[in-house]
Amino acid sequence: MNKRDQHSVFMRQAIDLSINKMLAGDGGPFGTVIVKDGEIISRGWNQVSSLNDPTAHAEMTAIRAACQHVGHFELTGCVLYTSCEPCPMCMGGVYWSGITTLYYATTKNDASAIGFDDRFIYEEFEKPIADRKLTAVQLMREEALHAFNLWQKKEDKILY
Amino acid sequence: MNKRDQHSVFMRQAIDLSINKMLAGDGGPFGTVIVKDGEIISRGWNQVSSLNDPTAHAEMTAIRAACQHVGHFELTGCVLYTSCEPCPMCMGGVYWSGITTLYYATTKNDASAIGFDDRFIYEEFEKPIADRKLTAVQLMREEALHAFNLWQKKEDKILY
Repeated sequence: MNKRDQHSVFMRQAIDLSINKMLAGDGGPFGTVIVKDGEIISRGWNQVSSLNDPTAHAEMTAIRAACQHVGHFELTGCVLYTSCEPCPMCMGGVYWSGITTLYYATTKNDASAIGFDDRFIYEEFEKPIADRKLTAVQLMREEALHAFNLWQKKEDKILY
Repeated sequence: MNKRDQHSVFMRQAIDLSINKMLAGDGGPFGTVIVKDGEIISRGWNQVSSLNDPTAHAEMTAIRAACQHVGHFELTGCVLYTSCEPCPMCMGGVYWSGITTLYYATTKNDASAIGFDDRFIYEEFEKPIADRKLTAVQLMREEALHAFNLWQKKEDKILY
């Protein structure tokens, strides 16, 4: 099997999850698989409405499951296949996981066309924090910097 | 107590979490509380290294706990107090939760100064997906659109 075919096999699994779990009533039409060394190590699908968890997007649940599988908070060398371009939350999760390659099928515009807010959130990020629809007010920066100073001095800290 | 003082009381709780849980070894120096009708309904703190979960940032754990508390995936009318400006993942989580007001203390630049990648991820988002350091390849859009079509036709779907 050539590489292109292999990618299609993994993406097919992500798409199948997006259909089957959505039809079963778990949540929206999104599926993800994470692959390490040519093997699927985790599967994720949208479970926002079934778990009452707005963070339970397909990519996030797949990342969390993959980390439990490898026993670490980093997924170095893993590849993520997801049925739709990740929203900003999930893309952030991908960065924090250390995954550096992903494959996606539909886009944020496709998701917006069926009523998901991905593009709106990306557009918010393009504006300075003070100009967004979400109200964000800064206070007590000096007090909070104390935590950062203590972190820098902590000798047994685990960097992530 | 005037409103400014009340905000400071809640932010003080978030900052205390950022210090105490970090010193206890749970993770990085970040804390969050979520408030509804003047009462704290959830507390979150960074648990990335202790849970082996790169998505376990303070805001995310607070949002998930608050949703379990209210029994819904939306936190309409809630206010989030967080010791540091949310990273893109957490800011995405805030949007998906329906929270429209947040208070933060330190900034993404403060976080970058002590080694956290928040600013790098925000900078990646400013570039088109094809120009980012993270490799993102599109394939099988037509096949995945089938899931979106089925979603639109699903009569008993729960919108979120």
